[in-house]
Amino acid sequence: MPVCVVLGSASDRPAYDKCREVLDRFGVASEVHIASAHRTPDKVAELVRGCDADVFIAIAGLSAALPGAVAAHTVKPVIGVPLNAKLEGVDALLSIMQMPPGVPAACVGIDRAENAALLAVEILALKDAGLRQKLEAYRAEMRQKVEKDDAAAKSWK
Amino acid sequence: MPVCVVLGSASDRPAYDKCREVLDRFGVASEVHIASAHRTPDKVAELVRGCDADVFIAIAGLSAALPGAVAAHTVKPVIGVPLNAKLEGVDALLSIMQMPPGVPAACVGIDRAENAALLAVEILALKDAGLRQKLEAYRAEMRQKVEKDDAAAKSWK
Amino acid sequence: MPVCVVLGSASDRPAYDKCREVLDRFGVASEVHIASAHRTPDKVAELVRGCDADVFIAIAGLSAALPGAVAAHTVKPVIGVPLNAKLEGVDALLSIMQMPPGVPAACVGIDRAENAALLAVEILALKDAGLRQKLEAYRAEMRQKVEKDDAAAKSWK
Amino acid sequence: MPVCVVLGSASDRPAYDKCREVLDRFGVASEVHIASAHRTPDKVAELVRGCDADVFIAIAGLSAALPGAVAAHTVKPVIGVPLNAKLEGVDALLSIMQMPPGVPAACVGIDRAENAALLAVEILALKDAGLRQKLEAYRAEMRQKVEKDDAAAKSWK
Amino acid sequence: MPVCVVLGSASDRPAYDKCREVLDRFGVASEVHIASAHRTPDKVAELVRGCDADVFIAIAGLSAALPGAVAAHTVKPVIGVPLNAKLEGVDALLSIMQMPPGVPAACVGIDRAENAALLAVEILALKDAGLRQKLEAYRAEMRQKVEKDDAAAKSWK
Amino acid sequence: MPVCVVLGSASDRPAYDKCREVLDRFGVASEVHIASAHRTPDKVAELVRGCDADVFIAIAGLSAALPGAVAAHTVKPVIGVPLNAKLEGVDALLSIMQMPPGVPAACVGIDRAENAALLAVEILALKDAGLRQKLEAYRAEMRQKVEKDDAAAKSWK
Amino acid sequence: MPVCVVLGSASDRPAYDKCREVLDRFGVASEVHIASAHRTPDKVAELVRGCDADVFIAIAGLSAALPGAVAAHTVKPVIGVPLNAKLEGVDALLSIMQMPPGVPAACVGIDRAENAALLAVEILALKDAGLRQKLEAYRAEMRQKVEKDDAAAKSWK
Amino acid sequence: MPVCVVLGSASDRPAYDKCREVLDRFGVASEVHIASAHRTPDKVAELVRGCDADVFIAIAGLSAALPGAVAAHTVKPVIGVPLNAKLEGVDALLSIMQMPPGVPAACVGIDRAENAALLAVEILALKDAGLRQKLEAYRAEMRQKVEKDDAAAKSWK
Repeated sequence: MPVCVVLGSASDRPAYDKCREVLDRFGVASEVHIASAHRTPDKVAELVRGCDADVFIAIAGLSAALPGAVAAHTVKPVIGVPLNAKLEGVDALLSIMQMPPGVPAACVGIDRAENAALLAVEILALKDAGLRQKLEAYRAEMRQKVEKDDAAAKSWK
Repeated sequence: MPVCVVLGSASDRPAYDKCREVLDRFGVASEVHIASAHRTPDKVAELVRGCDADVFIAIAGLSAALPGAVAAHTVKPVIGVPLNAKLEGVDALLSIMQMPPGVPAACVGIDRAENAALLAVEILALKDAGLRQKLEAYRAEMRQKVEKDDAAAKSWK
Repeated sequence: MPVCVVLGSASDRPAYDKCREVLDRFGVASEVHIASAHRTPDKVAELVRGCDADVFIAIAGLSAALPGAVAAHTVKPVIGVPLNAKLEGVDALLSIMQMPPGVPAACVGIDRAENAALLAVEILALKDAGLRQKLEAYRAEMRQKVEKDDAAAKSWK
Repeated sequence: MPVCVVLGSASDRPAYDKCREVLDRFGVASEVHIASAHRTPDKVAELVRGCDADVFIAIAGLSAALPGAVAAHTVKPVIGVPLNAKLEGVDALLSIMQMPPGVPAACVGIDRAENAALLAVEILALKDAGLRQKLEAYRAEMRQKVEKDDAAAKSWK
Repeated sequence: MPVCVVLGSASDRPAYDKCREVLDRFGVASEVHIASAHRTPDKVAELVRGCDADVFIAIAGLSAALPGAVAAHTVKPVIGVPLNAKLEGVDALLSIMQMPPGVPAACVGIDRAENAALLAVEILALKDAGLRQKLEAYRAEMRQKVEKDDAAAKSWK
Repeated sequence: MPVCVVLGSASDRPAYDKCREVLDRFGVASEVHIASAHRTPDKVAELVRGCDADVFIAIAGLSAALPGAVAAHTVKPVIGVPLNAKLEGVDALLSIMQMPPGVPAACVGIDRAENAALLAVEILALKDAGLRQKLEAYRAEMRQKVEKDDAAAKSWK
Repeated sequence: MPVCVVLGSASDRPAYDKCREVLDRFGVASEVHIASAHRTPDKVAELVRGCDADVFIAIAGLSAALPGAVAAHTVKPVIGVPLNAKLEGVDALLSIMQMPPGVPAACVGIDRAENAALLAVEILALKDAGLRQKLEAYRAEMRQKVEKDDAAAKSWK
Repeated sequence: MPVCVVLGSASDRPAYDKCREVLDRFGVASEVHIASAHRTPDKVAELVRGCDADVFIAIAGLSAALPGAVAAHTVKPVIGVPLNAKLEGVDALLSIMQMPPGVPAACVGIDRAENAALLAVEILALKDAGLRQKLEAYRAEMRQKVEKDDAAAKSWK
């Protein structure tokens, strides 16, 4: 399975849905798990060690230890998504981003699960030329959307 | 062993020394371990499960996952000390303090390892009347220090 | 009475209810008081000195002096709960957490009164094996909840 | 005694010296005390109640409960000076400033003990025309200093 | 007129109302003005110089220059109230509080206009024993309210 | 005089020097004044009204009211430079930037007086083609510096 | 075209409308474009290079790279408007304001697009005396509004 | 070339050295470039488009637009390293991390260039089993270092 998504809580599903929608669009298979670094540390360890995913995405709020806990058990790339549960998400952001030397995590923006998925696809595309073409197409589509919006803005007011 | 102190890195020894000095003063036996939530997660798990300490003190900076990782493996009280390694210690503070519902950690002030030791002694004193007397004496000593400083201030300038 | 809960204001009752619910679940008797460090400092002093509780929980927002004021009058463990009344709760968080050397307070997360109760139970369990078993059961229940959520996630989308 | 200055710790003397220098310049008599809201709460209460000062100045860092503790025991104006001991002084600033409705404290800038003294003098000047004249003279002197600096700047480089 | 209240904008009236309610309760006469440090700097200067108030209260949000602008034109005590218009009020708080040496302003809590009024009354009470008695009565009333709330809390749940 | 630079204090000269160096390089004449929004508000008003500069640059730290005070007295563009005197310069930054609707100030980076000068030159260049050419040359020089550094980096290690 | 407004996204239109309303009021012609520094970097470059505007206004939230990207391609003055999309707008504010030496951007307040327009008008007025008169009239109107509000406040309550 | 490192300025070399040391250790070839998003936007565009690197690492401080500017021109993974030049690095952190939907960047900790290199190696290891073994060995080495430190701690004091 190319991507393994881990959520700290079932209540984080909306963030997962944004992530999944992007992965599906690119035809990237994924599995999702609920596992908490603080409530089920052993489950996190087993899950990560037993999973042959190429990339992990870990989504969590508050003292967001989950991305770091996943990274502690794998040398695969781990992408962390800080959620805004309190303090505008600054607690999660710092918990995920300020990893110690030796065990990296890749932090994306607050509540930005769709970018975690895109980053995962970018990573997978390194060994899949088809994915890379899809990414180029996705960018082109974004550019066209901006061009269309720009054209529409000409008639504002 | 009443107290188990866990440091995320050997470089955190100065904080440990402040902690140990207080524990020694109260005659509270302790053991110290170096174990990293991110570099040695299994060691943390084994250490905590194998230790019959009454209270854990976990000291860490940056994305300070250690106190939460200790708390995840025990229902004994866990005291976390956030260290100022970056960002004035705010990253460690939030990582330690913003634990999710169900798995508490007791956070003390930034770099305030002596207070972690005192809190541990206060907890142990619940079943040790001798310790409680020592705590009362410690407070009395602090009060006398303040009184002495106050008297000395009368002659300032 | 094992636990004494002090609120800075009657308007903090929702936080107290979360706290009480956990204490009741564990069969831990508690008493609750309204007392303000700034409006009724003498009441706080008398209340704390006259109370033979094993653990104090103090809940307050803004310049949350209450936990420190309680701690100033006892050598029993004091747990502080910072409430979000302004500034996302950062004012209360820092007021509670940044205690000076010599007088510790155990700070839990913002609005996290249920964790204050759990921490109190963990402390009381040091001299009550029955409580410890209940805590282990509580953790097991949390784990089962996560396992159930994880199983349910398999059928998402 | 018109002004009573209270320090949380003898180590805060540098801030006191700045304060005292201003009070002396204006010929305002003052007394200084060391008393800690957390280490010696009773001393704070007794000191404040037993002191017939017109204005209190309380100087403290970290979880700076002292100004609020002084204000809790008097209806005289209380001026708080937040010191930078940690976190650039933000902890002290918020602890002092975010007082609850009903018990005000007048917060000045971080480490700005000289302004606390000036504010005290401004308050005392309401019933002392001589002080008011001195304040006007002080302002005039500041203006002259600026004029002189401005003139000197003409020759820069 | 004992108290002069200055608002940066008519839209700040809710804060003024809280302030006025307290002043009225204490029978302290006041006048209110709308004057902006940035839109009408001359009006601020004239207003302050032409007003024989004993105390000024200046209420403003954002880059809250008003309290400092008032203080620049008088040696009477100036109390500043930071309003939360953006950034949780942190912009106003810092603009008001971080005054340079020589020109103090007394900052109260965010949106805490009632405390500004109380602080003004405390200052005026230095030369009005009647006001001081009213302040003591106000505090006693607050204490009774807390006692009543505390008694009511006994029957919670 | 095309540019008028105003400093809140003579101690801000290092920031002025960076500013002046850029203005001199572009051959833009300037005058400098020391005037404080809080200590000499009338001087600020007179200076601004009496000065026929095209652009004002105001440099200040702490509660940096100076740029706003300058802007209050002119409809010429006012550029504000926040200095780091306390709080990493965040107090000055917010005081300068969060101006109310109707009275703009152009804020540059913390301690970034050279960029204030460049922005002033960019504004003046709108009616001076020679200046615009110099700006293009300045950018070209910066680009060449980067190219040279890039070439040098090839031999690193 | 005197002013070129660039938005990072069509969803930023409300900010643009505030901006446009001010420009229209002053009779300043403007054009608007949607172009994203991250999605369409080439479009930004071409747009800026191909546009003979005197002043650019760039409006963006989050990692608001747009004002800096515009500034990178022109030596005309660039005004940046940070929008509050996350983190109260602090992310956009810092991204816009903390430009490196050599490439300035003029930052206005969070969501303060009307002030960006006014600043643009102030800049254009340097070579258009008619605009300057309109600006003076606009200020006078603001003053009259404050006077009217002040008069109305006399009858409050 | 597997990894392309881009620095915003030659003065960022110390961060690069930490990055390079890790890449060299893993035998991963890399090239380094100096290119500024604000001073040389075209160079950044050309460099990124002309480089067939698998992974980009962009290192910058202040308004750290470089990682986003690199990401705007490639669908390869881009890792951003925020440097502490001002504001403890919070400005760079937010500029890098808060990317808009559609264009991800992988942010590591403040000044944590060694982790950027490790993350790059983890990504490259997805198609290079030898690298993965080296990563496992690196982790094992870290674990042994912790074990050794833990053993040494037994003899502390």
